Amino acid sequence: MQYDYIREPQAIYDESFRQIRAETPALAGMPEDVTDLAVRIVHACGEPKVAEDLGWSDDIVRKGRAALVDGAPVIVDCRMAGDGIIASRLPADNTVLCPLTDERTYAIAKEIGNTRSAAAVELWKPDLEGAVVVIGNAPTALFRLLEILHEGAPKPAAILGFPVGFVGAAESKEALIEAAHFGIPYMTLRGRRGGSAIAAAALNALAKNNQ
Amino acid sequence: MQYDYIREPQAIYDESFRQIRAETPALAGMPEDVTDLAVRIVHACGEPKVAEDLGWSDDIVRKGRAALVDGAPVIVDCRMAGDGIIASRLPADNTVLCPLTDERTYAIAKEIGNTRSAAAVELWKPDLEGAVVVIGNAPTALFRLLEILHEGAPKPAAILGFPVGFVGAAESKEALIEAAHFGIPYMTLRGRRGGSAIAAAALNALAKNNQ
Repeated sequence: MQYDYIREPQAIYDESFRQIRAETPALAGMPEDVTDLAVRIVHACGEPKVAEDLGWSDDIVRKGRAALVDGAPVIVDCRMAGDGIIASRLPADNTVLCPLTDERTYAIAKEIGNTRSAAAVELWKPDLEGAVVVIGNAPTALFRLLEILHEGAPKPAAILGFPVGFVGAAESKEALIEAAHFGIPYMTLRGRRGGSAIAAAALNALAKNNQ
Repeated sequence: MQYDYIREPQAIYDESFRQIRAETPALAGMPEDVTDLAVRIVHACGEPKVAEDLGWSDDIVRKGRAALVDGAPVIVDCRMAGDGIIASRLPADNTVLCPLTDERTYAIAKEIGNTRSAAAVELWKPDLEGAVVVIGNAPTALFRLLEILHEGAPKPAAILGFPVGFVGAAESKEALIEAAHFGIPYMTLRGRRGGSAIAAAALNALAKNNQ
């Protein structure tokens, strides 16, 4: 028995994005380049409505893309987010770092009285200046990033903040939006939704302009 | 500056699941063991409403869990789904296989006129009998799995079918539900939503009974 479905990758891709653009009225209220990220985010989760809850700074694409072209490393808060990043799209063979996998996070977490995801942020510091940060999982990682920025840590080039969940996710993203005074370009999804697929999709859209 | 957020992992976990159980009325209509998977799925995406669109066979937990305890391999359609599987929860040091990474998928895709995700399904065959299949990405992988089952391929022990997207995702999952005559235990999420985080969450819930 054969099922009736589209088998050609380009046709699947084109039809997906056609549907997304047709069903996501929120795109009309965004700068053109920001829609690049929005459509990929909608594509990643199958939910056009998430576009209504996106938050961003108007310079996120211009500055985030420029940073990647300049060779900025990408720092992810979890392996799933790193796995969603399409390496062939990265413009300068950019390194993708996931310090969460570092064994030192166990001891640091105990020391600072926080989660391992937040502990990993201490290990972001050497590479943080000018990096593109991608948070796809942990609210505590985003909160901790904001805390170290208040403490004077070097500034990343951009923050794609998409932690997901019921405890702290929505709050951490509101905190990111309210931290606009740092002048760090960002994109985020308000509320509980988020996750690695969405975060990686945003990074993939930043990496290469081909919408 | 310090933000006010919960930093203790167990407290985050407990409060998350308390909120989920409080806000997901659809749980009341499910067998108790199926709610194990449903709460983890809701946790993974931050969206209690997805519980209303879940589909399952009543034996999915009993048989899926038994298969894992018996040492069944886990076959994933993409690396992100594999990455979301918590190895320490697997009851029998179960192997997690991701044939999509096999270079042969390029040639097979051309040969069969399908996506690489569907091509990878050909490479599932040697390990398919009694395996636990986890689809977190590609509708074409789920359609292809159903096609080979119609062709007489060995039956997996369970199918966690959570492809995501705008082209074929909803249809492939309806096809899975309609293929109940195969008698293969399954769980799925109707419609466009799905993805690796959800698929891996379902597998993690199957792997270990600790709700």
